[in-house]
Parts: sequence; structure tokens; C-alpha cells
Amino acid sequence: MIGQDAACCAGLSSPLDEDQAAELAKVFKALGDPVRLRLMSMIASRGEGGEVCVCELTPAFELSQPTISHHLKLLRQAGLIDCERRGTWVYYWVLPGVLDRLAAFLTAPQTAGATA
Amino acid sequence: MIGQDAACCAGLSSPLDEDQAAELAKVFKALGDPVRLRLMSMIASRGEGGEVCVCELTPAFELSQPTISHHLKLLRQAGLIDCERRGTWVYYWVLPGVLDRLAAFLTAPQTAGATA
Repeated sequence: MIGQDAACCAGLSSPLDEDQAAELAKVFKALGDPVRLRLMSMIASRGEGGEVCVCELTPAFELSQPTISHHLKLLRQAGLIDCERRGTWVYYWVLPGVLDRLAAFLTAPQTAGATA
Repeated sequence: MIGQDAACCAGLSSPLDEDQAAELAKVFKALGDPVRLRLMSMIASRGEGGEVCVCELTPAFELSQPTISHHLKLLRQAGLIDCERRGTWVYYWVLPGVLDRLAAFLTAPQTAGATA
């Protein structure tokens, strides 16, 4: 997951090994779909500590609730969001710091010997 | 392309419309593969203004040169890298500012007091 192990210390500005690349590719792949990116933006727009009911997400798309839930599951498996069921509905939020860590990964300044 | 139109102004912290999401999903999808992510890191590790010969990239993978070239083409189509042929070889570089803009997109502050 981004923010742990490989992801915390490596940046895209130093060559990634296979394990780091495999781990991080999952995160980018999760974001590499228009529906998931819109879902992610809807959840992230609530800010730190905010959450969204799945009942607010589904009406924004012309897709079935199982399809939306599947996309949300992929975002969750990538370590980007988490959720909790309360009564009828499931509520989603962005995991704290995950977008900051992903951004830091993209822009980590290149430093000599960073791969050590 | 990231850094133009939608991508320059929108952040993941505000809901994306369909066009913005479709455009940006292409960029994340391009990064959502371990081989492409490693290629990207090898190219980015040369820093601003640096470039890499495809002849240096291919030996790092147990993949054919046409396969590597295909992955590089997808990164180029996503607006992440560009290339130029000189003599026998093609040289690749990261488009200036593209990773910074992608990082800014991920972390565009939605609320006051966002992490510095």
C-alpha cells in the first residue's frame, strides 16, 4: 500500500525495483479509470475526516449500484479509501495522508544514493 | 494531457466532471502497470533535462524491445514523456513539470489548513 514499505521511501525520481513497481502500479491502476477517478474525487472532496454515503455516490452515475460498489472495492483494495457499514448504507472516506504520499512519490527530488 | 485544460485547474479534492475524469484516467492508467512505472522511474531519475536511450532501458527487463517500445508509446500518448530518434536509437525524457502537475492534482487543497 502506498505509504508503507516501498512507497514511503522511494520516489519516481529514482529507479524502482520490481516489488515497489508492482505495489505502486496497483494504486495508479485503481485511479486509471474515469468512474473510479470521479468516485475518488467525490469522496476526497469531503476533505480530511469527511465521508460519503454510497447512497450519494450512486445517483451521480448511470451505473448499477453493484457496479459502483465494485469500483469502490478496487479503490479500497488499492489502499486509497476505507469504508464502514452503518445500518442500510456503507460510508466511504479517503485514508488519511494517502494522496499526499502519492504526490510525494511522484515528485520526490532525485538525490544521490537514494536507492541505498 | 495533464497540465492542460481540465488537469491544470481541477484537483482530486473537488468533484471531477466526466471529461476531466476521462482525460486524467488515461494518465493514471499509463502509470498503472509495473513495467511502465519502472520505465517512468528510469527516465525520471535522469532529472529535469535528462534523457535515456532506449538501449539503456531494454536490458533492465526480460521483455522484447518491441514490448518495451509499446509501453513507452503508452507513456508518450498519456503525455508523460516524449522522445526523439537520433541515428540508431530513440531517446526519452519526462515532459517538464508533468509530475509536479500530477502531484498538485492529487493534493489540491480543498480546505484551509491542508498539509503544507
